[in-house]
Amino acid sequence: MYENQGRDHRRRAVGAALVAAVASAGIENVVLEKHSREHVLGRIRAGVLEHGFAELMREAQCGDRMDREGEIHEGFFIAYNGEMHRVDLAGHTGGNSVMIYGQTELTRDLYEARDRMGGTVIHEAADVQPHAMDADAPYLTWRQGDERHRLDCDFIIGADGFHGVSRRSIPSNVLREYEKTYPIGWLGVLSRTKPVSPELIYARHEREFALCSLRSQVLSRHYIQVPLSDRVEDWSDEAFWEELKLRLPEDVAGSLIAGPSIEKSIAPLRSYVAEPMRYGRMFLAGDAAHIVPPTGARGLNSAASDIYYLYHAMVDHYETGDDAGLESYSDRALARIWKAQRFSWWMTMLLHRFPDHTEYDRHLQETELDYLFSSHAATTSLAENYVGLPF
Amino acid sequence: MYENQGRDHRRRAVGAALVAAVASAGIENVVLEKHSREHVLGRIRAGVLEHGFAELMREAQCGDRMDREGEIHEGFFIAYNGEMHRVDLAGHTGGNSVMIYGQTELTRDLYEARDRMGGTVIHEAADVQPHAMDADAPYLTWRQGDERHRLDCDFIIGADGFHGVSRRSIPSNVLREYEKTYPIGWLGVLSRTKPVSPELIYARHEREFALCSLRSQVLSRHYIQVPLSDRVEDWSDEAFWEELKLRLPEDVAGSLIAGPSIEKSIAPLRSYVAEPMRYGRMFLAGDAAHIVPPTGARGLNSAASDIYYLYHAMVDHYETGDDAGLESYSDRALARIWKAQRFSWWMTMLLHRFPDHTEYDRHLQETELDYLFSSHAATTSLAENYVGLPF
Repeated sequence: MYENQGRDHRRRAVGAALVAAVASAGIENVVLEKHSREHVLGRIRAGVLEHGFAELMREAQCGDRMDREGEIHEGFFIAYNGEMHRVDLAGHTGGNSVMIYGQTELTRDLYEARDRMGGTVIHEAADVQPHAMDADAPYLTWRQGDERHRLDCDFIIGADGFHGVSRRSIPSNVLREYEKTYPIGWLGVLSRTKPVSPELIYARHEREFALCSLRSQVLSRHYIQVPLSDRVEDWSDEAFWEELKLRLPEDVAGSLIAGPSIEKSIAPLRSYVAEPMRYGRMFLAGDAAHIVPPTGARGLNSAASDIYYLYHAMVDHYETGDDAGLESYSDRALARIWKAQRFSWWMTMLLHRFPDHTEYDRHLQETELDYLFSSHAATTSLAENYVGLPF
Repeated sequence: MYENQGRDHRRRAVGAALVAAVASAGIENVVLEKHSREHVLGRIRAGVLEHGFAELMREAQCGDRMDREGEIHEGFFIAYNGEMHRVDLAGHTGGNSVMIYGQTELTRDLYEARDRMGGTVIHEAADVQPHAMDADAPYLTWRQGDERHRLDCDFIIGADGFHGVSRRSIPSNVLREYEKTYPIGWLGVLSRTKPVSPELIYARHEREFALCSLRSQVLSRHYIQVPLSDRVEDWSDEAFWEELKLRLPEDVAGSLIAGPSIEKSIAPLRSYVAEPMRYGRMFLAGDAAHIVPPTGARGLNSAASDIYYLYHAMVDHYETGDDAGLESYSDRALARIWKAQRFSWWMTMLLHRFPDHTEYDRHLQETELDYLFSSHAATTSLAENYVGLPF
């Protein structure tokens, strides 16, 4: 098995989580990583882990620091029309919750677990290429500096992100691609400030969407919806905080603590799925096969979903010779992935202002929110998706 | 009070239901009707009454025949990918259901109740015009043949349909209109045949949407989605039945009984809301203020929803002098109307094939159905909307 890392960093945690999990089950594996360890651990990404992902981390014996330092969130807020409405996740799902724990921290824990187990991670692997995936003896080639390498293996896990080589190595007459783009972006700012609310606030506003998120009680992550044509340089820290405050209920804006940005970036919103997620002896996982807009916090969790199925399939294969899990991997993983796609699309449509929306559409959007908070069933549907549907 | 009848016949039942209700409470009222009684009773319209509407009919002492001849439906089917999935309405709503009873029958019962109570219905009233609605003494004028008439009244109820004069008499700087059109139509066929299923079947299909509905166990009402450019003359009965069968699961198609059409028509799908629903002493109700696509069976029921609020407001006004119900009518009626608009839009998007849908959209639609039938909360949300949200 191998993992290759490209530009997108979600897969970092994912590939690492998988190899930690299978390694803990005694399955030998090698990780190929495009970048250096320092680079991998230097970036900030997602931070909301669904219940089942946290469980998987514990199963892989990598959950100690997460359980110590992470925050259990049993709810979040949706703000609209100047008012805050809480979604009681625990109350609507029989006690389930999400774990707030930065992906960077997660990756660090997985690296340390890897070190403890003496597993191989080959960093700065360039020109990675999978071969003979459709035959019985697949192998990988890559380059480190001037040296060329080859690794023969049982299986290849393409957890190498949206821009990785794995998916692109599947013949185009086999691969089906589904895509939806949204004409909006998120401008995100990370700051060493105390979060304005202990729980996340998703704000639907006439001035466009905003999100108050966090990585810990001293690290805030805020986002505002911006036109795709905006560039990061267009937004000073001052302008960002000012605009953010205008999109929040008054009392929330009043207690918001602004601070210098540690990181500032604009991300477009995109939905994408590639099918199938298996080609012979190569299995795709995470962003290599699918992307969601960040609104429902499904990105990292969708990747974790793949890992859940793949981990169990690998264990069955090596421990009992049962290949049912590997055979059904693509179908089972995709069934859950599409549900996460649906939820991400729905929550994106619920909260953003779109250039092509009519007055009717805007009114419908408000009605959807009114209905959501007036119906136990509707709130439950939102909650069960946010904490993660059953595997 | 008065009721004027134009081209759209949904309001027929609605206005009649209201006047029956208020008359049973001892409130004097006059009905103005554009057409003859024979004309009114000669047409086929909706047939699915939500729980609360059936209750209102009983409260107005017009529910006896409905309770005798109508059918209680505790569920319906959604067919997709060749399989039937039942929505258990009663099981998901604590025993609620819908009543299958033709709107024509309902109107007949209301006429008969009107006769019994000795109430006035002025038929073939032409050039109806409300006056001075914003003053203390509103009045109506109309013509019958060459005779001109005037009626002074406390209140005017504009239950005169989408094309009626009431809404159009509200100054345009007061009226706000919200509209959504869909680039598709429904071709409907009524036949004296036994329904293929005791319960309704909504079919999502690659060949476009179809619906097997009924008015009774000897009267079937079927629909197929068609392009808006199609004309009724394009569709022979044979072509209709053949196309319908292609869109149903095989075993359903196999037992479908075809027969000559009694009525055949194409209706475009439209969403529309006018706000406010009150102008001075005139109150809008039913299609005069709002239209929905028929997918969620909300049209007649949305009208009934207005009547529920208006009836209680009128009784409060005349019995206790409490005008709170009249003052809040527009806001309260609209809050529920918008939720019916949301549900109708959602069910329309869920089941139809749209010309501008991408492969991603189609896959998302299938996922929405898969999620719907895998989640108790999602099925409950559908069911509670279909039987009618609480007033």
